[in-house]
Amino acid sequence: MNTIPTKDKTTIVLFSGELDKAIAAFIIANGAAAYDHEVTVFFTFWGLNTLRKHEVVRVKKGLLERAFGWMMPRGAKKLGLSKMNFMGMGPEMIKHVMKKHHALSLPQLIELAQEQGVKLVACTMTMELLGLQEPELIDGLEYAGVAAYLGDATNAKVNLFI
Amino acid sequence: MNTIPTKDKTTIVLFSGELDKAIAAFIIANGAAAYDHEVTVFFTFWGLNTLRKHEVVRVKKGLLERAFGWMMPRGAKKLGLSKMNFMGMGPEMIKHVMKKHHALSLPQLIELAQEQGVKLVACTMTMELLGLQEPELIDGLEYAGVAAYLGDATNAKVNLFI
Amino acid sequence: MNTIPTKDKTTIVLFSGELDKAIAAFIIANGAAAYDHEVTVFFTFWGLNTLRKHEVVRVKKGLLERAFGWMMPRGAKKLGLSKMNFMGMGPEMIKHVMKKHHALSLPQLIELAQEQGVKLVACTMTMELLGLQEPELIDGLEYAGVAAYLGDATNAKVNLFI
Repeated sequence: MNTIPTKDKTTIVLFSGELDKAIAAFIIANGAAAYDHEVTVFFTFWGLNTLRKHEVVRVKKGLLERAFGWMMPRGAKKLGLSKMNFMGMGPEMIKHVMKKHHALSLPQLIELAQEQGVKLVACTMTMELLGLQEPELIDGLEYAGVAAYLGDATNAKVNLFI
Repeated sequence: MNTIPTKDKTTIVLFSGELDKAIAAFIIANGAAAYDHEVTVFFTFWGLNTLRKHEVVRVKKGLLERAFGWMMPRGAKKLGLSKMNFMGMGPEMIKHVMKKHHALSLPQLIELAQEQGVKLVACTMTMELLGLQEPELIDGLEYAGVAAYLGDATNAKVNLFI
Repeated sequence: MNTIPTKDKTTIVLFSGELDKAIAAFIIANGAAAYDHEVTVFFTFWGLNTLRKHEVVRVKKGLLERAFGWMMPRGAKKLGLSKMNFMGMGPEMIKHVMKKHHALSLPQLIELAQEQGVKLVACTMTMELLGLQEPELIDGLEYAGVAAYLGDATNAKVNLFI
């Protein structure tokens, strides 16, 4: 009996909401996809901010959820750095050198990941806690919980928490 | 000869001493245990603070060890956030939304992990360095070093550093 | 036909540029090497600062690269802590207790790793972005990109992102 060889798998939990860590996560994810791995990135806690749309989306939510929405960065263009943030100057420096060296920006890295079939999964439990709703996030995502993540991770060769 | 099928294994190193990261670690640990994995969480560096008892425990220690004891948060109820800590207001907001959504608190997640048989291991090297002693930590822990962690991790399907 | 049994493998991505995380990475790396694993540590982003030489090395670089060079810590002796840095007092406290307990310092842990044959790999993409050049880094490194890392990680039993 012939069986189709299964692909190697990689999963990344993106917990952190910082530009530098999100870039690292997407460079590894895109690298693994180019390496012909099946790749899942599971966005939880602050990592979910990477997936927010830049524009304000009108959805009904309570005061606390609204407060979280205001305080957290709205999308990949607004993230700070984990180091040397310097009130937002650091991210601009990093973006500048990346452009200068023709490296892809974070929004471009996300787009490339989606083109390469990387599975981007938003953690539904975090969405509930922080009051984030599907219309506020970019298109093309899957929505799931920790059980789905563990199903992927158990069969993966490379598992990272970033 | 019949052999008992061995369980899949998951290990987590909890290095960070922040509420949000500890919650993430325990949600994954409890999820993996529910998924019938054998789970080990290895607490090292600041992660050990998660396991401290809330009350002051009288033990003999030197001045430097005493200073570390004062400066570090005493247990799961006292941890700050990695982001948006706002002088302690952030953790209260997170605890509030978790309660509102009937999510388990960190102390409850730890209790559930122990009930599910998750192995909680305190890193003995860190305890020596930071001057933490067994009576200062919660009950039901194992005590071991990096060699024991590596023994578990080498046989695990999912290994994370948080 | 006899085949040489292949060794178990461990890979660590060191992304963070803090003393405590670098120490944790090298303790695990050295432990895994002692455990007879083939170990690779891949230094990317701020993690690369761990590998900088302490002395200033004269190389030609642009203004922005020079600015990064000034702002980032020069080598393993200059790293701060991820927690309780206290304007540099924290790292001195940690170094003091490590010395008191006869634990190896970070420079000694790096030396031990090199003696044990741990492969230390500097991420060439980060070097380009931050303007770091080979003469500015310690001797005995390999230079590679994310593809090489993924090649190692896919065959490893333990993969961590620190």
